[in-house]
Amino acid sequence: MIESTSVQINGRPAVTVTDSGNVLEATLDNLSSRFHAVWLRDNGQDCRSVDQTNGQKFTALKDIPPDCLIESAVLNESQNIELVFGPDNWHTSIPFKWLWEHRYDAPESPEQPLFSGEIETWDSGFADTLPETSFRDASEDPDALHDWLQAIARYGTAKMTGLPKKNLAVLDVIRLFGYVRETNYGRYFEIRSKPNPVNLAYTTKGLQPHTDNPYRDPVPGLQFFSCIKNASDGGESILVDGFRIAERLHCEAPDAFSRLSRYKVRFRYAGSHDTDLQASRPVIQTDVDGTVTGISFNNRSISALTDIPFDEMGGYYNDIRRFEEYVNSQALQVKFRLEPGELFVTDNTRVLHGRAGYSNSASRWMQGAYADKDALYSMIRILNNQRGN
Amino acid sequence: MIESTSVQINGRPAVTVTDSGNVLEATLDNLSSRFHAVWLRDNGQDCRSVDQTNGQKFTALKDIPPDCLIESAVLNESQNIELVFGPDNWHTSIPFKWLWEHRYDAPESPEQPLFSGEIETWDSGFADTLPETSFRDASEDPDALHDWLQAIARYGTAKMTGLPKKNLAVLDVIRLFGYVRETNYGRYFEIRSKPNPVNLAYTTKGLQPHTDNPYRDPVPGLQFFSCIKNASDGGESILVDGFRIAERLHCEAPDAFSRLSRYKVRFRYAGSHDTDLQASRPVIQTDVDGTVTGISFNNRSISALTDIPFDEMGGYYNDIRRFEEYVNSQALQVKFRLEPGELFVTDNTRVLHGRAGYSNSASRWMQGAYADKDALYSMIRILNNQRGN
Repeated sequence: MIESTSVQINGRPAVTVTDSGNVLEATLDNLSSRFHAVWLRDNGQDCRSVDQTNGQKFTALKDIPPDCLIESAVLNESQNIELVFGPDNWHTSIPFKWLWEHRYDAPESPEQPLFSGEIETWDSGFADTLPETSFRDASEDPDALHDWLQAIARYGTAKMTGLPKKNLAVLDVIRLFGYVRETNYGRYFEIRSKPNPVNLAYTTKGLQPHTDNPYRDPVPGLQFFSCIKNASDGGESILVDGFRIAERLHCEAPDAFSRLSRYKVRFRYAGSHDTDLQASRPVIQTDVDGTVTGISFNNRSISALTDIPFDEMGGYYNDIRRFEEYVNSQALQVKFRLEPGELFVTDNTRVLHGRAGYSNSASRWMQGAYADKDALYSMIRILNNQRGN
Repeated sequence: MIESTSVQINGRPAVTVTDSGNVLEATLDNLSSRFHAVWLRDNGQDCRSVDQTNGQKFTALKDIPPDCLIESAVLNESQNIELVFGPDNWHTSIPFKWLWEHRYDAPESPEQPLFSGEIETWDSGFADTLPETSFRDASEDPDALHDWLQAIARYGTAKMTGLPKKNLAVLDVIRLFGYVRETNYGRYFEIRSKPNPVNLAYTTKGLQPHTDNPYRDPVPGLQFFSCIKNASDGGESILVDGFRIAERLHCEAPDAFSRLSRYKVRFRYAGSHDTDLQASRPVIQTDVDGTVTGISFNNRSISALTDIPFDEMGGYYNDIRRFEEYVNSQALQVKFRLEPGELFVTDNTRVLHGRAGYSNSASRWMQGAYADKDALYSMIRILNNQRGN
């Protein structure tokens, strides 16, 4: 989730052209920040440069002369910076507030956090404060919906109660903010034990906490489970915060963290004659900044490890064994019993889910579906803006 | 796309337990390859270890004693390796062929290729050999469908002719192998000029080649455009292979390649009151091995660059300008006129698409839709296996 910092301009803004027109120096109170001429030219906010309704740019870099310079910059009474560029006498304007919110001339940045965005990791104690709302509140009260979606973004999971008493209410929940991700399992899937199951999920066995479909690329970002009936004996849901595991490893066993994020693991699912899904990614996925962006762990669909050098294989097995120990640790697991009419959602790129085995094969019946996270974040921003107005 | 190498076992296989039971050495002809005890234990292929129909594992690492050792390994007449492990007297078996196909004890690997899988990059000359098939052949002949899907995997684009004369035939094409990715634009979208468009795509303007929806995470992996009517004047489709651009930069300007894959760019789309999509990724995306996995470039939806240090910003602008020069280079562009009943598909994580502007606003009418790539690769494997049988 990406947001610019919104700032209040209470001080005395000023702008000065320096470096022979190559740089604009903006100051506010005692702070100053530099901007390149080409950056300013590229970010004009007038109606010739940017569509004023949807923010799409009309210009491409080929429209900017390679030797562009700032000829003048004047801060007017509305706190707009009126800019003139050479050599082609191009005029544009940028609000000082917008400029200040988008400054990039930062002092040496502090140590990179392990996660981007407003993430809070959790352990078993989270069971007492697992965020939840009712379907009715989420449907009727934009603030309740915002807070529920924000909880999913922050904690990677949330519960919902009071689902409509109808088949496939899980799809109604997804429609509150986004769109179903259809896969070979359909737009939704029934999770109940059946004869000759194509997937171990469709048995009465317990399932070690895992992320769903690591053999898919892209993986489904969100998974939803609604309870139609639960088992009379067993069948509890189990959640583990994969980001907490990454955090622990990063702190306690940096070499393990490093290997688990460096080497790729293959996952595969070939559960029926018409499906052979394969994907390959590290258990701990990081981006170019080193921040953790995702977790993939599923003992059922992991393939033979072949992308790890012989000399690293023994160490890697110790690492992934340690990861699995955290997955099965009582201290990290949140356990609860989902009742009929209830649902939980997980960020499937972060939170592992599992279940206790159960004995009465006829009784447990869940319905599941997948969705993508982009619509989740979009709706949070929209509701947040509406709340602000 | 991930495949294990299938090998023929014609030589004389043999196995020897070494390193006090920690390692199995397998030999075939004059080659040998080592396997760790824990790896072998983890990859037993018997029916207690692996579901024989869908390949899902029954075991987790917690089921393997940390001090497991190979007590004996015997290659039987069926070329199965019968393994016994201590300290818990665990029996399993692994076919020698399977083992040899999954060996990881490689000599120093040669230089990492820039792309994984069977990728061929192309330039303007590709116009003469753009792969195409008819909807009828793809529907009725599994080999034709395989070759068409394989072309999309290899080149990142292909054409289809003779679409059914019905509304939304584009969705029928996706159903040949996979599933529609639904977004805020719907399950499909109409691309024709209209008043007060929410997106510049819905005007008569030319569009510089770009990838779709870089402001979405995950980005749609495949985009499909079918032509209902084309403009009487202009409106040609333009394709550019982003992987060729990456290849050129990697060779001709390694510093530019490095910065374009190191620094993240923000993309945003806020085209209507209910949508505010934002995502951040490098223009050239690479994975932990350094292979290029994706390209994102779209001058309309790129936001102000703020994640690049001041001292690198000038250089970065030169780099992305150079990238854009390739995007607009006649030497790299394939141009063609899509006729009614025709469709093209692009791998939207690789190939950029654009269009020439057109004058007759009433005439050009395309229908588009997105899908994910996992189903594409799955269907290629399935059809390939069927062909082999």
